[in-house]
Amino acid sequence: MRAFVFLGAGRVGVVDRAIPVAGPNDAIIRTTASLICTSDVHTVSGGLPIPEGRILGHESVGVVHAVGSSVVRYKVGDRVAVNAVTPCGSCDGCQRGFTSQCGGMLGGYKFTNQKDGNLAEYFHVNDADFNLALIPAGVTDEQALYTTDMLSTGFIGAEHAQIPLGGSVAIFAQGPVGLSATIGATLCGAGLIIAVEGKPDRAALARRYGADIVIDPGVVDPVSEIMSLTGDGVDAAIDALGHQKTFEACVKVTKAGGVISNIGYHGDGDTTALSIPLAEFGLGMGDKQIRTALCRGGRVRTTRLLRLIESRRFDPTLMTTHKFPFEDVATAFRLMQTKQDNIIKPLITF
Amino acid sequence: MRAFVFLGAGRVGVVDRAIPVAGPNDAIIRTTASLICTSDVHTVSGGLPIPEGRILGHESVGVVHAVGSSVVRYKVGDRVAVNAVTPCGSCDGCQRGFTSQCGGMLGGYKFTNQKDGNLAEYFHVNDADFNLALIPAGVTDEQALYTTDMLSTGFIGAEHAQIPLGGSVAIFAQGPVGLSATIGATLCGAGLIIAVEGKPDRAALARRYGADIVIDPGVVDPVSEIMSLTGDGVDAAIDALGHQKTFEACVKVTKAGGVISNIGYHGDGDTTALSIPLAEFGLGMGDKQIRTALCRGGRVRTTRLLRLIESRRFDPTLMTTHKFPFEDVATAFRLMQTKQDNIIKPLITF
Amino acid sequence: MRAFVFLGAGRVGVVDRAIPVAGPNDAIIRTTASLICTSDVHTVSGGLPIPEGRILGHESVGVVHAVGSSVVRYKVGDRVAVNAVTPCGSCDGCQRGFTSQCGGMLGGYKFTNQKDGNLAEYFHVNDADFNLALIPAGVTDEQALYTTDMLSTGFIGAEHAQIPLGGSVAIFAQGPVGLSATIGATLCGAGLIIAVEGKPDRAALARRYGADIVIDPGVVDPVSEIMSLTGDGVDAAIDALGHQKTFEACVKVTKAGGVISNIGYHGDGDTTALSIPLAEFGLGMGDKQIRTALCRGGRVRTTRLLRLIESRRFDPTLMTTHKFPFEDVATAFRLMQTKQDNIIKPLITF
Amino acid sequence: MRAFVFLGAGRVGVVDRAIPVAGPNDAIIRTTASLICTSDVHTVSGGLPIPEGRILGHESVGVVHAVGSSVVRYKVGDRVAVNAVTPCGSCDGCQRGFTSQCGGMLGGYKFTNQKDGNLAEYFHVNDADFNLALIPAGVTDEQALYTTDMLSTGFIGAEHAQIPLGGSVAIFAQGPVGLSATIGATLCGAGLIIAVEGKPDRAALARRYGADIVIDPGVVDPVSEIMSLTGDGVDAAIDALGHQKTFEACVKVTKAGGVISNIGYHGDGDTTALSIPLAEFGLGMGDKQIRTALCRGGRVRTTRLLRLIESRRFDPTLMTTHKFPFEDVATAFRLMQTKQDNIIKPLITF
Repeated sequence: MRAFVFLGAGRVGVVDRAIPVAGPNDAIIRTTASLICTSDVHTVSGGLPIPEGRILGHESVGVVHAVGSSVVRYKVGDRVAVNAVTPCGSCDGCQRGFTSQCGGMLGGYKFTNQKDGNLAEYFHVNDADFNLALIPAGVTDEQALYTTDMLSTGFIGAEHAQIPLGGSVAIFAQGPVGLSATIGATLCGAGLIIAVEGKPDRAALARRYGADIVIDPGVVDPVSEIMSLTGDGVDAAIDALGHQKTFEACVKVTKAGGVISNIGYHGDGDTTALSIPLAEFGLGMGDKQIRTALCRGGRVRTTRLLRLIESRRFDPTLMTTHKFPFEDVATAFRLMQTKQDNIIKPLITF
Repeated sequence: MRAFVFLGAGRVGVVDRAIPVAGPNDAIIRTTASLICTSDVHTVSGGLPIPEGRILGHESVGVVHAVGSSVVRYKVGDRVAVNAVTPCGSCDGCQRGFTSQCGGMLGGYKFTNQKDGNLAEYFHVNDADFNLALIPAGVTDEQALYTTDMLSTGFIGAEHAQIPLGGSVAIFAQGPVGLSATIGATLCGAGLIIAVEGKPDRAALARRYGADIVIDPGVVDPVSEIMSLTGDGVDAAIDALGHQKTFEACVKVTKAGGVISNIGYHGDGDTTALSIPLAEFGLGMGDKQIRTALCRGGRVRTTRLLRLIESRRFDPTLMTTHKFPFEDVATAFRLMQTKQDNIIKPLITF
Repeated sequence: MRAFVFLGAGRVGVVDRAIPVAGPNDAIIRTTASLICTSDVHTVSGGLPIPEGRILGHESVGVVHAVGSSVVRYKVGDRVAVNAVTPCGSCDGCQRGFTSQCGGMLGGYKFTNQKDGNLAEYFHVNDADFNLALIPAGVTDEQALYTTDMLSTGFIGAEHAQIPLGGSVAIFAQGPVGLSATIGATLCGAGLIIAVEGKPDRAALARRYGADIVIDPGVVDPVSEIMSLTGDGVDAAIDALGHQKTFEACVKVTKAGGVISNIGYHGDGDTTALSIPLAEFGLGMGDKQIRTALCRGGRVRTTRLLRLIESRRFDPTLMTTHKFPFEDVATAFRLMQTKQDNIIKPLITF
Repeated sequence: MRAFVFLGAGRVGVVDRAIPVAGPNDAIIRTTASLICTSDVHTVSGGLPIPEGRILGHESVGVVHAVGSSVVRYKVGDRVAVNAVTPCGSCDGCQRGFTSQCGGMLGGYKFTNQKDGNLAEYFHVNDADFNLALIPAGVTDEQALYTTDMLSTGFIGAEHAQIPLGGSVAIFAQGPVGLSATIGATLCGAGLIIAVEGKPDRAALARRYGADIVIDPGVVDPVSEIMSLTGDGVDAAIDALGHQKTFEACVKVTKAGGVISNIGYHGDGDTTALSIPLAEFGLGMGDKQIRTALCRGGRVRTTRLLRLIESRRFDPTLMTTHKFPFEDVATAFRLMQTKQDNIIKPLITF
């Protein structure tokens, strides 16, 4: 099969690889469509150390090609979505309910990180009964792809925010994760959604997905603006970027008793620490909470997200700005590196 | 009346003052006993800017001396406890359930901070129906005093920690707040309580209050020791000191999905920020939570804490290491400043 | 002033009454618009014993006419909404967070029940700072009226249902409370909303407010139909009617671990007990929960609901099927009694 | 091997059976000790239809005799406890967090109900990695046995009760499940524990385990007594018996906003419905909650309960009133049927 792999030191390419084989609890999926994630870019640029030759990608859907002897829920030919996070369901983290922390911190994220990813013609899924989800007939492959990472990550950011019905939320950055958090905030009943985003196309999409106000951080200071708009701050703030500056802004704009919900990856900077401004944190006694999350996986979660799409609550494919056949995946990848041409998400078809 | 006041620039003293007067919703309490808090020391040393002449103290109990015209629950002569935090019950913070953040961040803390404190022969209580609590006959004044701050603060630290029944918790520092958090952890069903404390008398008291293990940070590194004892860290860690070092240790020893619960006052250092170590925080995606709290007040809360004492679940007076009549309050205060003579809490009687 | 009162034994009428007077914490509102509630009909027919001459109504908005000496947040001329439930904010129920149970079971419901209601040219509001909410300029009186009972009741039904994002919910009956629960279910992120309603106009409105499927209980058995649609039942079921039959159906269609959320008034039947079918309740071990609620009041709650309307998340006035000037309130009331002419809610203007 | 089996129509006996065989994810345990449960008595008397020859029992500990090829956490010779409930960890119920409802309502309860139980010299455990728990050296077999059902059931009753720190709880019946709920209530920080029990030895043990007050329902009416003791009722009530009368009493003694937590098996009566008294239920609007639960299983849960015993928080073996070698299991069983000789739990050793 053809696979898109890491070739070391910032280099990538399509190579030939053997089709993977399923152990007793596993499944092999024939890929029909994928999305490329900014995490793939981080990985290739050295943000996550992986061996040369490792297949990239963790946002793919497809058709079941083979199942292991213990798999009971799925059969060859089923059209399925697989989340980027594929927990075992049994370890301490999973039994405690933190399936994304399967086997240890961030351990639910196995594609590319612990084994080959799924930007390839076929891919392997551990614990298939736990992790595969049937795609309903009314949901396209392209739509289903968004449940594998973007929506699930954005939504957990909104869920963790614990926005009361009619409450207010600020969401920093409107890339695909932030846009998904904006959709999530509408689904969680926010009464005032303030998005912070400078790129006009992303700002427009944020409005379309439910943002009531979009602040351009290149024009005004978001912290002052949000305090001015709300008086005492927002009920919750979501950091969908993962920078010291956005995290700090989240702490500052959240009212006493509010929630700072982080879904940004804070591993990309040159620092080993994240700094909380003490005054706005009530000197550690302001009843503010900081929540953090990694994308949530699993069959039940994915099935619910697919149902929201099937019920036409929103259309995630507005985030698809580009489309490429798999043979041009390297071109798509370069675009994600440069973020040129107003790219949000590139769809890869097989 | 006689009152213990701030005289500016690290100076304190007992002076004569008029007995306060009750507005319609208020009460005036004749003080029978008080405790001095380390927060009083912080305040006098400049940690909290207050005007000269302000009465110190926020941990007092007494007898109702007068009530305002709208007060319906209490009458002259009732023996009552009053929490250090006295919310209004009506503002946004209070209606949202964050009564300690009454009227704004940390705004529930009114004694000394916003008005005269209660290290005086009489003191004023706002919103008396909301904030007074009858002391049951089976509870002494000395016992009741501990509900006014130490126990309520320590317990919210344990409650926020969300320790599962039989789960593990590490509590950093075993001053009176940390000791109260240790009691709170037993009341919350912790199966393994690891206290971190170097002073032998406090360590002994921690064991008596339920700590299974006490680590001396002068002898071993608490982080390594806790990781070694638990393998994957604790379900929750409580910072009862409020230093960068203890907060950081809390983040490090908490397992993925665990809770860092802060009840330490982080305003005493020379920094304006609190630093989170990113690796152990899962780069912001480890499902760790940081909770913060200020002491919880209110009649219902205080009544419940009094009932725990009445039901002999624990005896808080083991924390009383010294006793003074009110005329010697300055001596007691100096001892709290120096922490000499193994002082934990000094009881002041009127 | 003119007021719509209970005249005993099923009789009502408009009479002259003195304008009420405000105590220190109270406000007097000059009514601008009201809705009539089915609860008013229940009350007049003897469901709730009240003295003759008691003013009816609890869904009104207006302009502040007078405030008591202790009121600080509002002034004469403010345009305000007042919830049907007006808690004190201070009693045990309120401090425990159950403001609708102020002063005892169902005690937050004071209009008509404990004192004069607000189908009158002026009305009295206790604890004005706690209970009044400013109506934003972008929200009409008619829209604001729906926050005073229908939306707040329907929404707490949806909130109590704890529907996971993308989860399924069945809502029994689509009167104004059930329709509000349907709106609430969309705001809570339900992925599948099944409404049960036989009247075509209400069914159509349910679809418009977000129901994915509407089942006509006159045509099919809702329990069989819901089990057939879902396989294992719904995540939650809401009883918005308050009959044994709908409650029982809720228990039956909810999957193990699901929630039955009641917002129906079960005081209208000829029985003193509500019956749970044991087999579908897992013999008391099926991890099903039954939640119950009375409409939620308070300034913060009402303000958030007004913000949802201001942000155009939905338009509640689609429920207004009829409009009358106050002089024709008796005609409107008779229509609510007979439910003729497909009435849902009649607007009364002053 | 020797096994204690159901022989049809109220008959039981010890027979010879083949040692079970482990599938890939399973383990075979050599039993070292067991307890007999009242549920076994219910089953034999026809409460749960099972085929003749089915091995009884679900409260056993032992030593790993064999493991399947996919089991990674355990090896032959490990001393382990196995909960009565053995979830798969992967089905919808498990992924939703309701592991006791594995595969469908009450489906986590597999021993005796779905397959052979464990009152036998060897027994089979499905999903061994999920369900086995190592017994710490400091915990005896007899102590560990109590984690397999009694403590886990009693504790979930107390956890579901959501008792605030210092809050009040009434627990109806002090058999081994009720006694465990009493222990659980102390671990959850209840400030007032009222047990209802008529047998003097059980009442005495309830006091020893933390009950502040024990009411004898043969002497006074528990509902009147609890209302008289508390004024407005308790924060929570636990039905540990499973009768209409105790359930109804729970509803009546719980204050508005309180929780009725059921852990009693309501399948033993001659009725198919459970009746809620409407007046005390606030006509379905009193903010009361009814929670229900089946014993919680799984490795992590069991490990935590074992840790509580290891940390000497309580000693469950006070409930062991009788001891028998396995050859006398039929005698022990008869005693559990008749409840003679003040039996609470009989220990069976192998």
